[in-house]
Amino acid sequence: MRRALVLAATPGVPLHPNPRVGCVLLSPEGEVVGEGFHHGAGTPHAEVEALAAAGERARGATAVVTLEPCNHTGRTGPCSQALLQAGVARVVVAQRDPNPEAQGGLDVLAAAGVETDAGLLADESLALNPAWTFAHVHGRPFVTWKFATTLDGRSAASDGTSRWVSSRAARLDTHLLRGLCDTMLVGTNTVEVDDPHLTVRDADDVLAPVQPLRVVMGERDLDPARRVLDDAAPTVHLRTQDPAKALATLYAEHDRHHVFLEGGPTLAAAYLKAGLVDEVVTYVAPMLLGAGRSSVGKLGIRTIDKALRLELVDATVLGAGEEANVRLVMRPGSRGSQARTSTDERN
Amino acid sequence: MRRALVLAATPGVPLHPNPRVGCVLLSPEGEVVGEGFHHGAGTPHAEVEALAAAGERARGATAVVTLEPCNHTGRTGPCSQALLQAGVARVVVAQRDPNPEAQGGLDVLAAAGVETDAGLLADESLALNPAWTFAHVHGRPFVTWKFATTLDGRSAASDGTSRWVSSRAARLDTHLLRGLCDTMLVGTNTVEVDDPHLTVRDADDVLAPVQPLRVVMGERDLDPARRVLDDAAPTVHLRTQDPAKALATLYAEHDRHHVFLEGGPTLAAAYLKAGLVDEVVTYVAPMLLGAGRSSVGKLGIRTIDKALRLELVDATVLGAGEEANVRLVMRPGSRGSQARTSTDERN
Ligand SMILES: NC(=O)c1ccc[n+]([C@@H]2O[C@H](COP(=O)([O-])OP(=O)(O)OC[C@H]3O[C@@H](n4cnc5c(N)ncnc54)[C@H](OP(=O)(O)O)[C@@H]3O)[C@@H](O)[C@H]2O)c1
Ligand SMILES: NC(=O)c1ccc[n+]([C@@H]2O[C@H](COP(=O)([O-])OP(=O)(O)OC[C@H]3O[C@@H](n4cnc5c(N)ncnc54)[C@H](OP(=O)(O)O)[C@@H]3O)[C@@H](O)[C@H]2O)c1
Repeated sequence: MRRALVLAATPGVPLHPNPRVGCVLLSPEGEVVGEGFHHGAGTPHAEVEALAAAGERARGATAVVTLEPCNHTGRTGPCSQALLQAGVARVVVAQRDPNPEAQGGLDVLAAAGVETDAGLLADESLALNPAWTFAHVHGRPFVTWKFATTLDGRSAASDGTSRWVSSRAARLDTHLLRGLCDTMLVGTNTVEVDDPHLTVRDADDVLAPVQPLRVVMGERDLDPARRVLDDAAPTVHLRTQDPAKALATLYAEHDRHHVFLEGGPTLAAAYLKAGLVDEVVTYVAPMLLGAGRSSVGKLGIRTIDKALRLELVDATVLGAGEEANVRLVMRPGSRGSQARTSTDERN
Repeated sequence: MRRALVLAATPGVPLHPNPRVGCVLLSPEGEVVGEGFHHGAGTPHAEVEALAAAGERARGATAVVTLEPCNHTGRTGPCSQALLQAGVARVVVAQRDPNPEAQGGLDVLAAAGVETDAGLLADESLALNPAWTFAHVHGRPFVTWKFATTLDGRSAASDGTSRWVSSRAARLDTHLLRGLCDTMLVGTNTVEVDDPHLTVRDADDVLAPVQPLRVVMGERDLDPARRVLDDAAPTVHLRTQDPAKALATLYAEHDRHHVFLEGGPTLAAAYLKAGLVDEVVTYVAPMLLGAGRSSVGKLGIRTIDKALRLELVDATVLGAGEEANVRLVMRPGSRGSQARTSTDERN
């Protein structure tokens, strides 16, 4: 299984919308007769690649797969059938498939008389596809909210200027994090005011080959001249103010698993109040303004015991000296979820 | 000289108000004939201790001292005279004495025919007594401003509650930093509203044996029942609103070298605007309030280019998980001093 995990983690595989999967076929004597990994949407699944490599030697073999073989006919046929047809005798999987449309492969195999086993190194397999797993389990994408702030909680000076609160190193880091997501999300007002491009670019401002879906949320119309509507990447305008509905649509209709929420403060506050932020990334700039726009919108919290408390996962200094920014990564804490509930009681 | 620096840094020496000093006496053959270090105010200076250890063997010896021998009669006689009387042939010092009242010892020795030398490992000696050196060079104490803040720049919720924004680990750390200073400073309003004790205590709330001077700044009268006026430590009320004047008084009349400024936001803003903050210590709590009191008062900054930019010196995570706080230590940057000047132009 460790070998299958290593295969699954082969670098360079475009992640979205499929999971990373690795497969090793072992002869009854324990010899490796075939290996495979999934190379991305539209290419053969890991099991199919391994079966092709093994040819006739797949008969009677044990398939070791990081994820339960799929049971639905997507762009490739169901893997459960392929394993049966190849005469595989035993299938050992790490993680059960959380995707309601694809799961059940192991039951089909067991019903056909194949010996099956699940759970070996399941956490390691999950760690290969955390957002993909999260999305299928919860029926909505994982949400990372990112914001930049001065030491005193400002996102802009009192005259509205904000270039730059975050340092160049922090801005480059943001593009790396954007590239790990499949969806960029902002509110209509940020599009109106800032006209952001919402693309992933490198240090030389060159567009990355694969771009996340750009999503603008809010009821008002968008000016067609806005940069977010150009053809650098696909864009969706969700004409709703309901965060839960927006996420459900992104999952069900657009196959989205990981949303990168970049503001503004109003939209972020709506997601926070709905308990729909799963990760917070904050770039703290060692800078004081003493006044100006708050980096976070009103949350309906009136007293310290109801504060939305987060659990610190990581603190990293990016850049040096006056250009140094501190990146904090946080998850909602146990007390955070209490706080979320209580903020829903506001009036 | 390295040995003299090690002697000077002997742990347990109560620092205030004297510097750490170490001295080694070497015979003409290079043999150590005496060593000494300063044990704190009221005890013999390092040179005197080393001379006593050497006795007659001091004659013709070389004195290696981390700080220029003093030239004034304090609680002990001038060390320059003591070295002359003992017949020392050569004096090598690291750091020149920055204290206007004590300096000139090396000139006196040279005029009396002793061979002298200065500057060897001077930075290392300075690092032993940074605040002491700073205070004598600038005629005012070094100012460390500490504040605690949520991720979104709040020091209290909208109903005024603030217990606790910072975690227990951060609060204990604050007591350690207080103990490294010789002065605690707050504004009259913090005393009126919070009634803080402003003492150094350990994890069991036991008072440290040596307490900094407690200083309250502002023109209004203090309620005599306030805890800051109890006898746990001496307290001074400076009836002024002028930060420069307050610091000059603390240096000249109270021998203070390192002020720990703990707020509130109004007093801190006054020091920031005056360019009289030399170090900023911020405890960032991974917590969101979305509203409430700002952790920093108005600075008269209107646009991002005039932001008070700081240089990040250190970032340390204190505690873990939801109890984790991030301590950031910063110094005014090169652009920070520009910003300070520009804020003085506000109207
Ligand atoms: N510091 C940072 O990292 C950062 C990041 C991004 C933006 N910004 C700044 O933030 C400013 C824009 O912030 P903003 O808060 O005004 O804009 P925003 O959050 O981008 O957009 C707010 C709009 O989103 C729509 N919306 C959708 N769902 C909503 C919901 N559940 N609740 C409320 N509104 C919802 C509403 O417009 P409809 O009427 O269309 O429904 C609302 O007016 C810009 O000036 C930008 O510079 C800062
Ligand atoms: N987050 C934190 O780390 C922290 C730390 C401390 C306090 N606090 C909170 O801050 C609140 C008090 O803050 P605050 O800002 O009102 O009080 P403050 O800064 O402690 O005191 C303000 C007062 O100081 C006097 N003052 C002296 N020099 C001044 C100058 N140059 N400019 C202006 N005023 C000067 C003035 O009173 P006179 O009329 O007497 O001259 C002024 O009203 C409390 O509620 C406390 O809980 C927070």
